[in-house]
Amino acid sequence: MNPTQLTDALRQQFDLTNYGQQPPELYDPIRYIMGLGGKRLRPLMTLLAASLFTDDYTLALKPAVAVEVFHNFTLLHDDIMDQAPLRRGMPTVHEKWNANIAILSGDVMLVKAYEQLLDIDAQHLRQALQRFSQTAAEVCEGQQMDMNFESRDTVSEAEYIEMIRLKTSVLLGLAMELGGLVAGADAESTQHLYDGGLNIGIGFQLKDDLLDVYGDPAKFGKQVGGDIIANKKTFLLIEALERAEGTVRTELLDWLGRDTFDKAEKVAAITAIYDQLGIRTLTEARIADYFQKGFANLDQVNADPVRKATLLDFAHQLVERES
Amino acid sequence: MNPTQLTDALRQQFDLTNYGQQPPELYDPIRYIMGLGGKRLRPLMTLLAASLFTDDYTLALKPAVAVEVFHNFTLLHDDIMDQAPLRRGMPTVHEKWNANIAILSGDVMLVKAYEQLLDIDAQHLRQALQRFSQTAAEVCEGQQMDMNFESRDTVSEAEYIEMIRLKTSVLLGLAMELGGLVAGADAESTQHLYDGGLNIGIGFQLKDDLLDVYGDPAKFGKQVGGDIIANKKTFLLIEALERAEGTVRTELLDWLGRDTFDKAEKVAAITAIYDQLGIRTLTEARIADYFQKGFANLDQVNADPVRKATLLDFAHQLVERES
Repeated sequence: MNPTQLTDALRQQFDLTNYGQQPPELYDPIRYIMGLGGKRLRPLMTLLAASLFTDDYTLALKPAVAVEVFHNFTLLHDDIMDQAPLRRGMPTVHEKWNANIAILSGDVMLVKAYEQLLDIDAQHLRQALQRFSQTAAEVCEGQQMDMNFESRDTVSEAEYIEMIRLKTSVLLGLAMELGGLVAGADAESTQHLYDGGLNIGIGFQLKDDLLDVYGDPAKFGKQVGGDIIANKKTFLLIEALERAEGTVRTELLDWLGRDTFDKAEKVAAITAIYDQLGIRTLTEARIADYFQKGFANLDQVNADPVRKATLLDFAHQLVERES
Repeated sequence: MNPTQLTDALRQQFDLTNYGQQPPELYDPIRYIMGLGGKRLRPLMTLLAASLFTDDYTLALKPAVAVEVFHNFTLLHDDIMDQAPLRRGMPTVHEKWNANIAILSGDVMLVKAYEQLLDIDAQHLRQALQRFSQTAAEVCEGQQMDMNFESRDTVSEAEYIEMIRLKTSVLLGLAMELGGLVAGADAESTQHLYDGGLNIGIGFQLKDDLLDVYGDPAKFGKQVGGDIIANKKTFLLIEALERAEGTVRTELLDWLGRDTFDKAEKVAAITAIYDQLGIRTLTEARIADYFQKGFANLDQVNADPVRKATLLDFAHQLVERES
């Protein structure tokens, strides 16, 4: 099965999934946020990982849905915490309904994610649930770290990498691990799948930070410079704050401290500082490192080379994306 | 083991339970709300139910903790939704920290509740998780119904009973069911335990409604008449609205519509209307019905009569409580 076929199978599975009916205020928001779509990369990676070891990818469909429902649960609750008005260009659940409904429908989504795991065969059920639970707790830890960073003056590179590892990367690792686990991969291969997903996930997040500044506006899809305007503590800003000295430091802190400013001017000024400090090159090198590590992990997975090529090809397409 | 010994064992188990450490903003609120105590009736019922079938009640300790952690998760999130300042006389989590921390630490509590179930033996694990998940979703459904009722003019008795069944009673049913399940009870007995917990749970909630109006202020612990002052749609008010006619109805609706009033006067006036309509007698009869049904369910459990007597004695003490 190629990625396009698996994507179709996934769409059918999502269409079939019944989250619940009554009361509608509880379940309509779940259908709404799941219906906003998104790229659904995580569940696709679950199916691709399972396909390394079995012709019957269908046994990974519900675990794949579990990962995506969990991911959307975190988006729903994160949007309340961030007071975000939009998600994928549409009103967020707390805007369309209200915050209480968003809290409660998110809660039930987490339960529904667990329910999707309960058809896993007895041999793998406990481990799947343990790994899912550990990852779910880690994602919450990462979100809390991210919130803590907002009110801090400085964040170290190590702290930032740990935050994105927890908040976003462990779930990509789990997505691939679960695919291998339910398809009967050996323990070492399952671990390599997790590590591969984790490292590629960290690379992705750093690339997100990079594209915010250096992305092609025609391809990026979001406003270039959005993180700069919002003083968001991205990998680039953290590196710049660790490196800037003298007048460059003064200028950087001055821009970060301004309450009113011309947005384009601020984006241009801070981008110029990043250029001067070599932040782009540095970030690109770190992204390449993580992607390389991730591919080395996947290379060690003990599976048929032809099947592995499909997974690796798809992963290569992903890491070359510019949006 | 008698209830006092089991309560001690539970306290030790809660003390031993490690919810997590870093970041502290995520895990301190869990320790805080779990440390507020409460009566911990649900986990005790889990141990008492298990003790019907085994001398080794310890195999029900973690499932008992799961039920209590889940219950406290619902309190934590409900308190945000209700904007409640106090819980058991202490500041609520969103007051002591903030709403975002309360949302996120609640989320991780739900994950930790699931984790407590993952040591259940392979034979019962899937069923325990299915029943736990179904119950968790039902509790969310009940909470959403409760929120919906606030903005409605009328609620029928059947709707109200269905709401409290979901919001509070299914969890007492599950608490007892899980105890039986992990201790090896036969399927019929497990069902009787669930039904018994469910019916006694509905009786409890109706008694809560009754005590708010007719409780002995010296014993009740809360302000008598609090529900009347807040126009809360309790079983008593719903029955009164279904029965009141003519001038009594006019008077009742007048009190419900007043924005300013003397609290003691409103409590006295609405209590007098309840008396006039026979609401106390009616409510007492319904409570007795549910308790009777619940005891009949427990009576059918296939277990040693001496062990059953311990459970029934304790349940009888519970239903006679006045606070």
